[in-house]
Amino acid sequence: MANIAKKVSWSGRGDDRGERTPLLNGDEEVKYNRQVPDTLDYDNSENQLFLEEERRMSHMGFRCLEIRRWVICGLIGFLTGLIACMIDIAVEKLAGYKYFAVKLNIEKYTELGGLSISLILWAVLNSAFVMFGAIAVAFVEPIAAGSGIPQIKCFLNGVKIPRVVRLKTLVIKVFGVICSVAGGLAVGKEGPMIHSGAVVAAGVSQGRSTSLKKDFKIFEYFRRDTEKRDFVSAGAAAGVSAAFGAPVGGVLFSLEEGASFWNQMLTWRIFFASMVSTFTLNFFLSIYHGKPGELSSPGLINFGRFDSDIVQYNLYEIPLFIIMGALGEGNVTLSLYIHRPCLQVMEAMLVAAVTATVSFAMIYFSNDCQPLGQDNTEEYPLQLFCADGEYNSMATAFFNTPERSVRSLFHNPPGTYNPVTLGVFTLAYFFLAVWTYGLTVSAGVFIPSLLIGAAWGRLFGILLSFIASTWFCCVNLTGGIVRMTLSLTVILVEATGNVTYGFPIMLVLMTAKIVGDYFIEGLYDIHIKLQSVPFLHWDAPPTSHWLTAREVMSSPVTCLNRVEKVGRIVDVLSNTSTIHNGFPVVAHTRIICGLILRSQLIVLLKHKVFVERASSRLSQRKLQLKDFRDAYPRFPPIQSIHVSQDERECMMDLTEFMNPTPYTVPQETSLPRVFKLFRALGLRHLVVVDNENRVVGLVTRKDLARYHVGKDGLEELHLAQT
Amino acid sequence: MANIAKKVSWSGRGDDRGERTPLLNGDEEVKYNRQVPDTLDYDNSENQLFLEEERRMSHMGFRCLEIRRWVICGLIGFLTGLIACMIDIAVEKLAGYKYFAVKLNIEKYTELGGLSISLILWAVLNSAFVMFGAIAVAFVEPIAAGSGIPQIKCFLNGVKIPRVVRLKTLVIKVFGVICSVAGGLAVGKEGPMIHSGAVVAAGVSQGRSTSLKKDFKIFEYFRRDTEKRDFVSAGAAAGVSAAFGAPVGGVLFSLEEGASFWNQMLTWRIFFASMVSTFTLNFFLSIYHGKPGELSSPGLINFGRFDSDIVQYNLYEIPLFIIMGALGEGNVTLSLYIHRPCLQVMEAMLVAAVTATVSFAMIYFSNDCQPLGQDNTEEYPLQLFCADGEYNSMATAFFNTPERSVRSLFHNPPGTYNPVTLGVFTLAYFFLAVWTYGLTVSAGVFIPSLLIGAAWGRLFGILLSFIASTWFCCVNLTGGIVRMTLSLTVILVEATGNVTYGFPIMLVLMTAKIVGDYFIEGLYDIHIKLQSVPFLHWDAPPTSHWLTAREVMSSPVTCLNRVEKVGRIVDVLSNTSTIHNGFPVVAHTRIICGLILRSQLIVLLKHKVFVERASSRLSQRKLQLKDFRDAYPRFPPIQSIHVSQDERECMMDLTEFMNPTPYTVPQETSLPRVFKLFRALGLRHLVVVDNENRVVGLVTRKDLARYHVGKDGLEELHLAQT
Repeated sequence: MANIAKKVSWSGRGDDRGERTPLLNGDEEVKYNRQVPDTLDYDNSENQLFLEEERRMSHMGFRCLEIRRWVICGLIGFLTGLIACMIDIAVEKLAGYKYFAVKLNIEKYTELGGLSISLILWAVLNSAFVMFGAIAVAFVEPIAAGSGIPQIKCFLNGVKIPRVVRLKTLVIKVFGVICSVAGGLAVGKEGPMIHSGAVVAAGVSQGRSTSLKKDFKIFEYFRRDTEKRDFVSAGAAAGVSAAFGAPVGGVLFSLEEGASFWNQMLTWRIFFASMVSTFTLNFFLSIYHGKPGELSSPGLINFGRFDSDIVQYNLYEIPLFIIMGALGEGNVTLSLYIHRPCLQVMEAMLVAAVTATVSFAMIYFSNDCQPLGQDNTEEYPLQLFCADGEYNSMATAFFNTPERSVRSLFHNPPGTYNPVTLGVFTLAYFFLAVWTYGLTVSAGVFIPSLLIGAAWGRLFGILLSFIASTWFCCVNLTGGIVRMTLSLTVILVEATGNVTYGFPIMLVLMTAKIVGDYFIEGLYDIHIKLQSVPFLHWDAPPTSHWLTAREVMSSPVTCLNRVEKVGRIVDVLSNTSTIHNGFPVVAHTRIICGLILRSQLIVLLKHKVFVERASSRLSQRKLQLKDFRDAYPRFPPIQSIHVSQDERECMMDLTEFMNPTPYTVPQETSLPRVFKLFRALGLRHLVVVDNENRVVGLVTRKDLARYHVGKDGLEELHLAQT
Repeated sequence: MANIAKKVSWSGRGDDRGERTPLLNGDEEVKYNRQVPDTLDYDNSENQLFLEEERRMSHMGFRCLEIRRWVICGLIGFLTGLIACMIDIAVEKLAGYKYFAVKLNIEKYTELGGLSISLILWAVLNSAFVMFGAIAVAFVEPIAAGSGIPQIKCFLNGVKIPRVVRLKTLVIKVFGVICSVAGGLAVGKEGPMIHSGAVVAAGVSQGRSTSLKKDFKIFEYFRRDTEKRDFVSAGAAAGVSAAFGAPVGGVLFSLEEGASFWNQMLTWRIFFASMVSTFTLNFFLSIYHGKPGELSSPGLINFGRFDSDIVQYNLYEIPLFIIMGALGEGNVTLSLYIHRPCLQVMEAMLVAAVTATVSFAMIYFSNDCQPLGQDNTEEYPLQLFCADGEYNSMATAFFNTPERSVRSLFHNPPGTYNPVTLGVFTLAYFFLAVWTYGLTVSAGVFIPSLLIGAAWGRLFGILLSFIASTWFCCVNLTGGIVRMTLSLTVILVEATGNVTYGFPIMLVLMTAKIVGDYFIEGLYDIHIKLQSVPFLHWDAPPTSHWLTAREVMSSPVTCLNRVEKVGRIVDVLSNTSTIHNGFPVVAHTRIICGLILRSQLIVLLKHKVFVERASSRLSQRKLQLKDFRDAYPRFPPIQSIHVSQDERECMMDLTEFMNPTPYTVPQETSLPRVFKLFRALGLRHLVVVDNENRVVGLVTRKDLARYHVGKDGLEELHLAQT
């Protein structure tokens, strides 16, 4: 159960990345670690073709592009909202059937005696749901496992994780999350919604589906990493917005993750997508619930409206929140870190069965009868061994989807739960959630941590008679686990529909973050680190002024000439020791005159843009930007391109295709300065030159991501280097 | 009244900028336009001294720095909150006395007949208050006029406006805003709070006050533009937070304006400052109101809690909001654009008297009696000619500080105001607000536009019987005028304490922005443009790919040698045709080897860091970073430095002080690429080099800010160029 390399597969299968995956030895773990995820190019390659196109475009043309961007963002929001709506309805229906069947069965056997049959029914139903979900994920698309948030974080940061924004991933993710939530696992559907939004965005903005082999011939202008990232940000925001009913929170989430490219127009578009998404979800849900036009319940998650009397928090409670924050935090993240899950459908089914069994056992052994209220807010109140007119409150907490449980923990009047019930529930659910987190199912970690926090807070609340503390424990745990910070505050404030909570939520989140950072990194960050992904943080490590570009860069670097022999290019690309995706183009004596990407060279080779040695340059076949866009983003590997021996002797003129103005730095540039350049401009390659502008090295993301702050200062990680 | 150049004085007095202000001709308007505000350096000058210091610092040292940053942010929040509290209490007290006196007088003369005496009393009281405020602003510190938001926007963007973050400015601003609000002008105190927060930040973070000649010898590390900007962002956020009780809104405001430097730790610090600020304000206000510890009324502005029944907006109202948005928008901004105010105390007093007269006339001629409610929410209900047990509702709207008026417009039950009253009120207040905006008083435009919007919305609300529309008109007008967009949404949502409004607020704001952008720029942007400030927008104009660095750059550029003659340096700095603040340092054949700033050269000259031609390099006096920090930010002008004829023959070695790794671009780089580099890295100078790394030109902010999108595509503005 502790095989890290096997766990999540985004450094797996490199089959379609247009990049060779050299297996230096047979050991599987090494193999996984050595497959470096590709990086994305958030700096436009401003080559002649691109500039010509831009220059041809009129002012009106740019306006139209802008309008198209808005239309796409609207579409992204609409589709994301629709998907959220679909998931919500499907889960509600399926879980409804399940609980109805189990409830009937329990009622039948409570009197007859033979509740083990109910247990088996429950366990089998749960396992069946989870099995379908796990099979889909494990066998069809392993990347759809988990919440997808770390993958989206990576994408926005500039790390390309294969297949993460594919249509197939979306389908499996949606199917998987429906199955796992309906199957009663301790999971939420919010993380997957964010991933789904991102996939929708990546698909819609490209105007085609490579999986379905369908090209609508629209939005071709947007077929490059820079534009795609903007749309994926909008998609992620729309996902957050649909999941939590928090459009502003969604925008902040995208900005916190995407960083470095804040731009007012872009922010507006992201905002628009978020808005449309919440709106669509609400509109369709209102129709589903038979009250069309009533848009008062935003988001998949809804804590209901809080009565402001309850939350009259005042000055004296604040230190308490902080202490609670500190305690809960260290505790939870540590446990999550220790636990490592494995990758099998069987395990998923086992967990589903165990979840059912534990729930059942606790329902069975607890004797926590509460009078049935007049207003009957519970959908499935179980009588069990309670007297008539009473119901078992433990059963209520477990016999529900996690979201409804959170809601009942918040809103049921004081006295609904007794402390022992809550204590046992919290503990049991905690271990189940930790175990579940590592399963190969599509599932979010947000709702379970919220639920554990709510139960624990309610426990505190009983002991200290503050109902408000329910909420803060909740916030604290979630904050400690996921560390989204500012956006999380806004998400939670928007989800509760009450701004009064803002201030204490912030305090608790800050405490959680400070205490948390001291002990351990956030869950998503741990996840990212485990994959040895070249993820760039906000700043260079503070003590890294010692290092200069000279020490950091890869050197010697393979350079190409402006007019290069085809044979040499093929050899360079085929060479498994060439680790870069970009090559400086040089004039005589290695003076830099441009930068060309592996993907561009591949397209050139594929279209055989060669000139014979003797002939004039004019005979070279003309390529257009369209050819590059058609190939984007799945460029074929070099092995699939056949170049004959004659062709190897031809020449290729790179002038038109290379970026003639790549960013360069002198060798003495300090690491923080290089880092800032990378982070601010979304670079992938930075050419290091000497005084006379001669290429001496190349800095890539991986060269920078190596350096981390450890306990004793700067540490160099052994990041995946093929 | 229409003299633009005279209006706001931030391109005025260049006396202490260490830069000569050549007057090419006597025409005053030309003079103003030709005084280019200095720019700020948001890119660290990583010279040897700096790197050595950074390298000496241990990991622990960086931790301490970080802790110091947090402490400063806490202090900034605390002081900003305190100032907000002070303003609030002062205004309440002064306005209270005033209304009490006038009310007694009115009551006395209503029966006697002779209300003109009351009018005179009111007008005189108002004028007196305003006079004090206007005198302080006009004669002591003209930069304190207006809201200060455009100036802070410029500062965060990288344009240095003289005296904008001085202690004197703060004192005058606070005094001025108290006077103008207490004097009954149609102004708010929110804008000035933002400015005050920024000044506090700039002061506290530097650990000294140049005005008071007091150096606390702390926080010396932070004496540079980069660090200062971060703190000023935090201060502005704390100001927003105190003004509106909206900490998240404050953070967003800073990010929207400061842009390009989003960093998670910084965001947290800004957030912390905001939080402390709201908290401090609330804490002290709660003590003032005699209920210590009750923190439920955040912010200077407080719309009170809305009943959720009233705001059950639904689908069908949305198109209405949009139409209202479009109408109100075009209307208001246009009028504000046409009007131009002048700069005299007399005018301010006149406006104050006219405001009182208009109000009085409307109170007098209206006959809008309403029964006095049991709960008596109005503090000064005027009976006037109404029957006993009734009060004059027009008087209520005018006989109050603008904030209270907004509140009563929101919360009074339907039927409180009749449509004619509201119509007349809206119109009158609108013209007064427009007139007031140009006065030389410290005043914000936020509350008046909110008030006009609220009154207008209430009017609509009566006609269409939607009370909610009050709110949306309000939002729309404010949005249309100030265009802060995302942060505005969050500010308004936080200020109302109700998230349900979020969605319609967004829709209205977006409409306001789109319609507004079509007609005219936002008020603050107009303001900035009028000052011909080199303000960089988010992106380069879309059709600017035609332009390359070669066309944009200033050339030829004055270069210095690595070891340069003192006489030459003095000549270069004294030469009035040298327009730059940075000089490339070159080796033989003009190969770039560094960049040195005017301010650094001034410090070197002042400390006479010379070597005699014959002597060895070792005799050069050692300068430390401390010397540069002590001189920051008010570097003396070159004229004040005496260099003898002998000294002119000495040499200066710039190696240690220049930035050895300035950013460079080739000549073919397109304008959008250059622009992105400037915006993302906060650059001030960008060296343009040829293939062999030889300096061919220099791009500055002013070179980029020239290009704007006009009606027919790209336009080149004739920005101030000395």
